[in-house]
Amino acid sequence: MNSFDKKYRKYKSIIDQKLTSCIRKSEPVSLYEPMKYVLFASGKRIRPLLILLSCEAVGGTMNEAVNASVAIEVLHNFTLVHDDIMDNAESRRGRATVHVRWDANTAILVGDELVALAYRELLKTRSKAIAQVADVFTEGVVEVCEGQAYDKEFELLHEVSLDDYLLMISKKTGKLFSVSSEIGALIGEGTEREIRALRTYGTHIGRAFQIQDDLLDVIADEKEFGKTIGGDIVEGKKTYLLIRACERATGKDKQLIRSIIMNKGTARKNVPVVKEIYERYGIIELAKQSIDRDIRLANLQVQKLRQTQAREMLFWFSEMVLNRQF
Amino acid sequence: MNSFDKKYRKYKSIIDQKLTSCIRKSEPVSLYEPMKYVLFASGKRIRPLLILLSCEAVGGTMNEAVNASVAIEVLHNFTLVHDDIMDNAESRRGRATVHVRWDANTAILVGDELVALAYRELLKTRSKAIAQVADVFTEGVVEVCEGQAYDKEFELLHEVSLDDYLLMISKKTGKLFSVSSEIGALIGEGTEREIRALRTYGTHIGRAFQIQDDLLDVIADEKEFGKTIGGDIVEGKKTYLLIRACERATGKDKQLIRSIIMNKGTARKNVPVVKEIYERYGIIELAKQSIDRDIRLANLQVQKLRQTQAREMLFWFSEMVLNRQF
Repeated sequence: MNSFDKKYRKYKSIIDQKLTSCIRKSEPVSLYEPMKYVLFASGKRIRPLLILLSCEAVGGTMNEAVNASVAIEVLHNFTLVHDDIMDNAESRRGRATVHVRWDANTAILVGDELVALAYRELLKTRSKAIAQVADVFTEGVVEVCEGQAYDKEFELLHEVSLDDYLLMISKKTGKLFSVSSEIGALIGEGTEREIRALRTYGTHIGRAFQIQDDLLDVIADEKEFGKTIGGDIVEGKKTYLLIRACERATGKDKQLIRSIIMNKGTARKNVPVVKEIYERYGIIELAKQSIDRDIRLANLQVQKLRQTQAREMLFWFSEMVLNRQF
Repeated sequence: MNSFDKKYRKYKSIIDQKLTSCIRKSEPVSLYEPMKYVLFASGKRIRPLLILLSCEAVGGTMNEAVNASVAIEVLHNFTLVHDDIMDNAESRRGRATVHVRWDANTAILVGDELVALAYRELLKTRSKAIAQVADVFTEGVVEVCEGQAYDKEFELLHEVSLDDYLLMISKKTGKLFSVSSEIGALIGEGTEREIRALRTYGTHIGRAFQIQDDLLDVIADEKEFGKTIGGDIVEGKKTYLLIRACERATGKDKQLIRSIIMNKGTARKNVPVVKEIYERYGIIELAKQSIDRDIRLANLQVQKLRQTQAREMLFWFSEMVLNRQF
């Protein structure tokens, strides 16, 4: 294990432990039991790590940013709990979702209180920049809601342009990455230039992360990925791949892609057919290029930062997103 | 119209206007259309008024506290939208609720973004005490969620003690009142003693407000009240009155009250019967005494404050709650 892996594990365990101490109460049971179920579960803690590294990369210490990093993870979990209700998702990370294990009302309330807990942790931050940090965080919540609204709107549309798709994911997925890197840089008291560089880094990483997610649905190793391949195709989800295929495919191929969109999904037996279309029209390649480009653009931002171990670890972070080790 | 009524109208119209400027975006339409539906509707703006008066009562100006007062109203609306989903409420203030007019997913998302907007407004506050203000606000969100959780838990119980009920309403309803008066006092830079007095004022007012609400379900003038009398009885809601009646009633009366609890409601024809039980066992009187006591205790706190017009208006505020002119 290299030193970056070691540091990641160390930070992850600090975050995990801090998440555990977020909830000290046990009553009302109907609220705190499911809240613990959510927050005490395992997770990759990517966003908190990004805050900590961004803070260190501008000369701050991990300790200064640790409360904010817990806050972003709690906020992320809020989005998961509420999105799972809206998406009728039955499981997450191999366990029943909150609204399935309990009920929708419980899941609504759990999500609501997670937002409050996220702010509570964030507001523990002792930093000259706390006002800006809180503003950036709040804009994050706003945009994540907007992203989810667009996503639900797109489900009803028969056509979604690539630009619309990119706008949606920049809010729904990307925003919490750029919020993380920006908040880290703010707490670490980075210069204007460093803050801008890190925010832009987060934007590119966030987009790469989501397109990688879309791609993995088609090309991942089922065991490693932890879910069945082709789920997005079966559900007719308007992913980067489906939108691109709709632009490029012709004749019968186009008809099949269009029918998936119109019928909001397709039979599982069509997954290999669609995958073959993705390959034949170079859609897989297109997605890979898009991810590569974002990772490259992200890394260009890191190059603007001073030489520190955290800076090197941001390159490692990009690599992890690219290879989806996260 | 006396000068207090005039001032109330003036402040209400300022809040209304500020609420309108909370939302400048119109896309995603699926999110901002219902958000405007909620925030641009009429409301009594009691909690914002309490913030403004509390700020003035310790020597601050209305302007300093106006953003926080908008924030508390936005937060209050968040609780209404989400509670209405959980309570299957079909209408509010004479209009369809968000989840009825749109759908549950929309209402979840609208509520979520209202929390973010509430923080956005709150964080516009320029005050030395902003850190404390944000902490108090956040604890408010936490307790409101806890209160709602208790309320939903109580629906499933066959027995709820008066203490449990009072704990629940102190969180679900009362907390936003004490948060309002405390935040106002903090922004106005009140002394420790003034802040404590105003927080306690809010606690008593909040409790009086909720018990008054329970009472009005039975004794209000239907036209003025705007909803059908006895709704709580028909639904078997565990109100102050029902809990007290369960303690005091005997024989057949007790049986009827218990059956309403066990069956989670009763036929509408039983409303006059229950009302008569409430009268015969002095339950109506008990509720009135409880409200009176809280109003008296609230006013004792106001007496600790320096002589200002705002102080006098706080007595008027108590009177308005007592007579439910709000």
